[in-house]
Amino acid sequence: MESNKFSIIMFSGTADKFIPLGILSQAAAAMGYEVNIFVTGFALLGFTKNPPILPFPAEFTKMAPDFMKGMEHANMPTWDKMLKEAKELGAKIFACSAMSTVLNLNKTDMSNLIDEIVGAATFLQKSSSGQIIFI
Amino acid sequence: MESNKFSIIMFSGTADKFIPLGILSQAAAAMGYEVNIFVTGFALLGFTKNPPILPFPAEFTKMAPDFMKGMEHANMPTWDKMLKEAKELGAKIFACSAMSTVLNLNKTDMSNLIDEIVGAATFLQKSSSGQIIFI
Amino acid sequence: MESNKFSIIMFSGTADKFIPLGILSQAAAAMGYEVNIFVTGFALLGFTKNPPILPFPAEFTKMAPDFMKGMEHANMPTWDKMLKEAKELGAKIFACSAMSTVLNLNKTDMSNLIDEIVGAATFLQKSSSGQIIFI
Repeated sequence: MESNKFSIIMFSGTADKFIPLGILSQAAAAMGYEVNIFVTGFALLGFTKNPPILPFPAEFTKMAPDFMKGMEHANMPTWDKMLKEAKELGAKIFACSAMSTVLNLNKTDMSNLIDEIVGAATFLQKSSSGQIIFI
Repeated sequence: MESNKFSIIMFSGTADKFIPLGILSQAAAAMGYEVNIFVTGFALLGFTKNPPILPFPAEFTKMAPDFMKGMEHANMPTWDKMLKEAKELGAKIFACSAMSTVLNLNKTDMSNLIDEIVGAATFLQKSSSGQIIFI
Repeated sequence: MESNKFSIIMFSGTADKFIPLGILSQAAAAMGYEVNIFVTGFALLGFTKNPPILPFPAEFTKMAPDFMKGMEHANMPTWDKMLKEAKELGAKIFACSAMSTVLNLNKTDMSNLIDEIVGAATFLQKSSSGQIIFI
């Protein structure tokens, strides 16, 4: 295994999951890892130019306001700010080509965070023999 | 790490998660990876002979019809078709023995996609020193 | 890759996800793996001294009673009992410092299962070049 590669398949589209995406990407990139992110599923909605408001998980909607307040109190940067930092450190973010077709999204519909649209096989190749997590 | 092993622990039982299961398994098997899948949790319901209709995530039910239409438009094969292709390329699918007991399911209750019922330790052994994701 | 390291980022806070956390940690520790767990997100609520009742996923609440009965029938130990066994075999459990701040939790508010509060970078270092899953 190449010990300096960290990949994330970002699939879940609820708001909470974008926080570990930001934190882990930023931390791994800052530690010198090669970071590759593959955005697919409902998560791709968060990477559009005019993203909808991402929902909190149905089980925890009651906790969402306290959670958001706690994030503010902790001065935690937003997930897209953390991703921008990760990208400045070399992280790459790819949109899943199959999901782009399903959701009828072109590269121009997507946020500037997306570097390229690629297929699953291409992404597996990029992340081969490194750590990989599915969020 | 063995760079040619890719394992999936399939736990989540919502309909959307079966799509990356199919796509990643098929892509990894086509790339020559040894693919091992461990089906457990509510996902095991999707691998029964008479599976219930798998629910979409509560947060995205409104989007489900458009999503399904998009999949049809994109001519995307169903997840079980993709798994069949992965199996033809050598992928193996295991059902979790503990979850089989909890849900009171025997091998004969399960779909033909399941190769064998094994415990978590056996699966960890099969996937040792390879990439592994939890869906 | 170090083939004897297994790490879990425990993020999801629904009741069902704590079962694979317990089973995989216990199995990996019993197999001689170095096991490191990073508890973050809503899952951290399950590791407080007075934890709330963890909700089942909204899509499967109807199945929860049968599921719980099945677990009793199968004599499956509770997730915290499995984690205790994993810890006796050397597993370490860390709470995410950022999430602790967001939820306003100190070490003294947390269950005895938690060994230490650390940041994401420290955890990535501990789990480097081993298998890692995100639950």
